Parts: sequence; C-alpha cells; structure tokens
Amino acid sequence: MAQPIDLAATAKGILSGDRRALARAITLVESARADHRAQALTLLGTLAASGRQALRIGLSGTPGVGKSTFIEAFGLMLTAQGLKVAVLAVDPSSARSGGSILGDKTRMERLSRDPNAFIRPSPSQTQLGGVARRSREAVALCEAAGFDVVLIETVGVGQSETVVAQISDLFLLLLAPAGGDELQGVKRGIMEMADLIFVNKADGDLKPAAMRTVADYSGALQLLRRRPQDPAGFPKALPVSALAEEGLEQAWAEMQTLAEWRKTHSHWTRTRATQSRHWFEEEVRQGLLAALRHEPQRGLMAGYADRVATGEITPEAAAAEMLRAMGRG
Amino acid sequence: MAQPIDLAATAKGILSGDRRALARAITLVESARADHRAQALTLLGTLAASGRQALRIGLSGTPGVGKSTFIEAFGLMLTAQGLKVAVLAVDPSSARSGGSILGDKTRMERLSRDPNAFIRPSPSQTQLGGVARRSREAVALCEAAGFDVVLIETVGVGQSETVVAQISDLFLLLLAPAGGDELQGVKRGIMEMADLIFVNKADGDLKPAAMRTVADYSGALQLLRRRPQDPAGFPKALPVSALAEEGLEQAWAEMQTLAEWRKTHSHWTRTRATQSRHWFEEEVRQGLLAALRHEPQRGLMAGYADRVATGEITPEAAAAEMLRAMGRG
Repeated sequence: MAQPIDLAATAKGILSGDRRALARAITLVESARADHRAQALTLLGTLAASGRQALRIGLSGTPGVGKSTFIEAFGLMLTAQGLKVAVLAVDPSSARSGGSILGDKTRMERLSRDPNAFIRPSPSQTQLGGVARRSREAVALCEAAGFDVVLIETVGVGQSETVVAQISDLFLLLLAPAGGDELQGVKRGIMEMADLIFVNKADGDLKPAAMRTVADYSGALQLLRRRPQDPAGFPKALPVSALAEEGLEQAWAEMQTLAEWRKTHSHWTRTRATQSRHWFEEEVRQGLLAALRHEPQRGLMAGYADRVATGEITPEAAAAEMLRAMGRG
Repeated sequence: MAQPIDLAATAKGILSGDRRALARAITLVESARADHRAQALTLLGTLAASGRQALRIGLSGTPGVGKSTFIEAFGLMLTAQGLKVAVLAVDPSSARSGGSILGDKTRMERLSRDPNAFIRPSPSQTQLGGVARRSREAVALCEAAGFDVVLIETVGVGQSETVVAQISDLFLLLLAPAGGDELQGVKRGIMEMADLIFVNKADGDLKPAAMRTVADYSGALQLLRRRPQDPAGFPKALPVSALAEEGLEQAWAEMQTLAEWRKTHSHWTRTRATQSRHWFEEEVRQGLLAALRHEPQRGLMAGYADRVATGEITPEAAAAEMLRAMGRG
C-alpha cells in the first residue's frame, strides 16, 4: 500500500468483478492509516450504490471439525452451479497465533484455483473493534464485486461468533461426531445463534456417532425457544460428509429454504437493518474510545494510571480529571 | 436522598464506624445524579486518606449452592473472633429480576443482627458500567469504616464474576456436590479466576458426592497453569458444610495463608495497583461513552441509525459524520 490507490479505477474494477481490484480494496479497508480510512469510506460509499447483495453465510466450528474440507467441498459445489463464491475469515486470535485460519491458501487448494471463487486469508494484525469493521467492509466489497455467496469463516473461540453472526444472513455451526455427554461443550449462546447445525464426518466408521450427535442436537434445538425469524422445523441439525461430499446438496437446499422464507416474511430486510444500526453504534463507540490511543490522551492516561497505581489519587477522581481534560467532564 | 448530605459529618461518621453514615454514603455513590456524583468523589477522596484496608473476598456461586448459608455461617465465625465483616452484593441481573440476591436481609437473619456485621442489599437499578463502579466504591467506603473483611457476593452468571474478581484480593468459588461429568459446567475462565474452590453441603447423604467433587476439582485445578501470585498447593479445592458449620475454620485458614503469602511476596500491592489502573481506564471509557446517552448526541444517534437502517447511508459513513459532529472526527 505504498502507492496511492486510484479510487475510481478500483471501484470500476470491483463492479466489473476484477479480483485484483477487490483484493486491493480489502487491503485498503484493513489499513489503520487515517488517509486510507478516508479513502475506504469514499470507496464503500460509491460501491453501496450498486445495491448488489450476496447471501452472507457465517460458519463457525472449532479446529478439527473439518471446516476447510467443508468449505472447499461446499464452495466447489456452488461454483459448479455457476455461482460466484467468496470466502473470508474472521479470526481475532491470528494476532497471537500468526494466523490460525486461512493463513495459507493451500488449505483449500482446489477452491482457490477456481475462477468463480475468491479466498481472502485472515489478516495478521488485529484489534477487537477492528476485526468486525474490517470483516463487514470486506463483505460489502465482495457483494459489490458480484459474488452470490459470501462465506464468513470463524474459529469457535471467544467472541468472534457473535461478530460473524452480526454480519451474516445465515449462521452455520459445524460440529464433529461426539458422545452425547459432550453436548454441553457447545455454549448455549452459540447454539441459540445457529440457524443450521451440520455434523461433519458422517462417513465410514464415524457415521453412527455422527447420526447420534445429529439426534442429540436436534433434541437440544427443540428445547430452545422458537424464533420469529424461523419457519417450522428450524433451526435444525443435519449430517454431512465434506470428505465424501455427501449431504451438501441438502445442506444448501436448507439454507435456501430458510433464506427464501425470511425474504418473503420481511425478516431478511429487518435483520440487515438491525445489523446496520448495531454496527453504526459500535463504530461510534470505537471511534470515541480511539481517542485514548492517540497523543496527548495516551500520555495523560499513562500518567494518571501511574498515580492511581500508587494510591496518590483514586481511580474515580483521576477518571473525572481525565474526562475534563478531554472536554467531557 | 432528597436532602443535601453533610459530607464532613458523613466522612467523620464513617471513620468512626457509624453504620448509618456508611449506609447513607453507599446510597450516595449509587446515585446517578451529577451533583451526587461530585459529592461522592469528594467523599471518596477524603476517606482515601485513612489508608485503611480490609481483606476483600469475592464469592461466586450459582443459585442453590448455599451461598447465603455459607456467608452467614462464615461471617458469624469471623465476628465471633472479633472481626468486623461487611457483605456487599454485585448483581447485574437485579434490574430484571427485581433483586435476586440480598434483596432481603432476612436471608441472613442472624448475621444481619450482629453488631459487627454490615449487610448491604443489591441495589435495584443497574447498568453494566455502573455495577462495577458502585461496588468498588462501596468496598472503599467499608474499608474506611474499619471493616476487617469485605465479602463481595455475586451470582455465577454473566460477567459479574470478572467484575468481582477485579475488585477482590481473593476470589472464592462455591459449588454444590455434583457428578464428575458436570465438571465442565463451570466455565474455564471462572476456574482460572478462583483462588479457592469450596464444595458446600459436605454433610449427611451428600458428603460422599461432595468429597468426589472436591477430588475432581483438585485434579482439574492441577491442570491449570501455576500462577505467579500463588504459593505451592494453590489454587485448591476443599469441602465445607455451611449448614453443619464444618470446614469453615480451615477455609478461613487457607484464605489467610494465601493473603499473607501474597503480602510477603508483594503480589498484594501489585494486584491492587493493577486493579486500580484497570478501573481508572474503565471509568474513562464509560465516561466517554456516556456522552451518547445525552442530548443532543442521543437524538443525532437515533437519526443516523434510522438512515443507516434504510440503507441511505453506510454504517461507516454515518459513524464518521457522528464523530465529526462530536468533535472527534
């Protein structure tokens, strides 16, 4: 990003489906530099006029459930139907681990070579507030580029599921076959977010265990309160085998059924509107707090923190002085 | 709180151990009114000079584990030794439930009549940022009033444990006897915060189950990384019976051992300093965000949110405009 970006050319490139222009734009929205930020806002504003919408599918699953294999098999099935598929990663942990997911395109080698697919590795530098914004903006760029489906992948740890669910139209949970007593291993909050639960590896020796796990989760899902945004029978649990490429057609059919029902019953528009409100408010909150990371506030904060630590001033009094110094007393 | 409070008299009253003055001061710090806030800051600043410190003990446990019975029996044991004990509640849920803990002093009838004990019910009106500040300030007031031990109770739900752990010198987890497969029901994060785990109801029929639960948690605690602030053998799990008043002396001895070790090895001061820094920063953050709840920002936010919801403006662009309007662009 050493060179200035030609915004008009980039916007035109994205709208015509140029993947290099898309990649460049995603790099731009990932940048924390103030001038890049201003450019990113201009670009996003321009592209919003296209009105293009993709089906945004959030996908969560802990390491080992076969997420990459599922995405590759599912993605290839969609591109074979002529659909354009983008895959993005939301991974707040990558700052520590050096990129635990999608750090390497070879993980989905066939899909990454598919001309109708676009895979974006998880950026290496992350901040909690930044992850959500960057991911949301990358989704918007993929929509403007004409992708039909945007898959947003996350590892099943921490708060990243909540972020992904707030970006997605559908939220999928991918699980491995397990004993019934492990059912509570999935946090209730995650269960409540899931529109569809897929139990992967329903093949070979693991098939009986997978079917039991499906039954266990089906039972658990029935105990959850029926949600207004769901038709009868949803949320539901289904077996899939990414390896044997089985159950993927049905998985996709269920997603389409749910998406269509929500569109018909206006839940679709309402959910997107609610998500937009949420992200607007969150952006404002993050923007206000960002002031603390810059000088002179940063230095003032450090100075007060030292005095608070020694007991020279109470936390409350120091905070009141700090807020006054910022004109917010 | 209709009448203006006499700050000098209140401060003097608190320092001399007058419980009515203490109760009045806690009501003051619980108030959200700007003039009360200013008075509260003055009062806390004055009292901080006393330099009095109590042993702050955080206690978490889900409903049904016998928390009230434990606090009453443990508190009475301490007051019988001549110690002054204050009991405070941190309960973010009370806004919804109408006060699920400590709403009624009759819950700990004997302790509430003890002249060396002070029990403060959970306030009914709550806000996430407010809970922490109010609790922290109430602890500071109890310390100034000369209490030796301040017990800070919370129900084991949501983020209240984190708040309580950040206020406390020691953090206790109270559990009921359970089958070994229920061990994972306690979140790992909570386990990692606990200095001591007490398995209550280790009496009568439940004693064997309680001992097994102690063994299970002892094993689980050994798998956690040794923390620099702990002597060998800590954190540990122990059986207690609040009902039969058994194991309480040992429980208290373990707390004292841990507290003394930390004081000798300077972890005590360091932890309190870290906590103070944390709360100072949190206060500043909450103060900055508070601006959004007042006019004209509140109205501006609502207006932008509506435009964002209809897609007239992107969340990012609306946030940027909002921040500019607040002088933070």
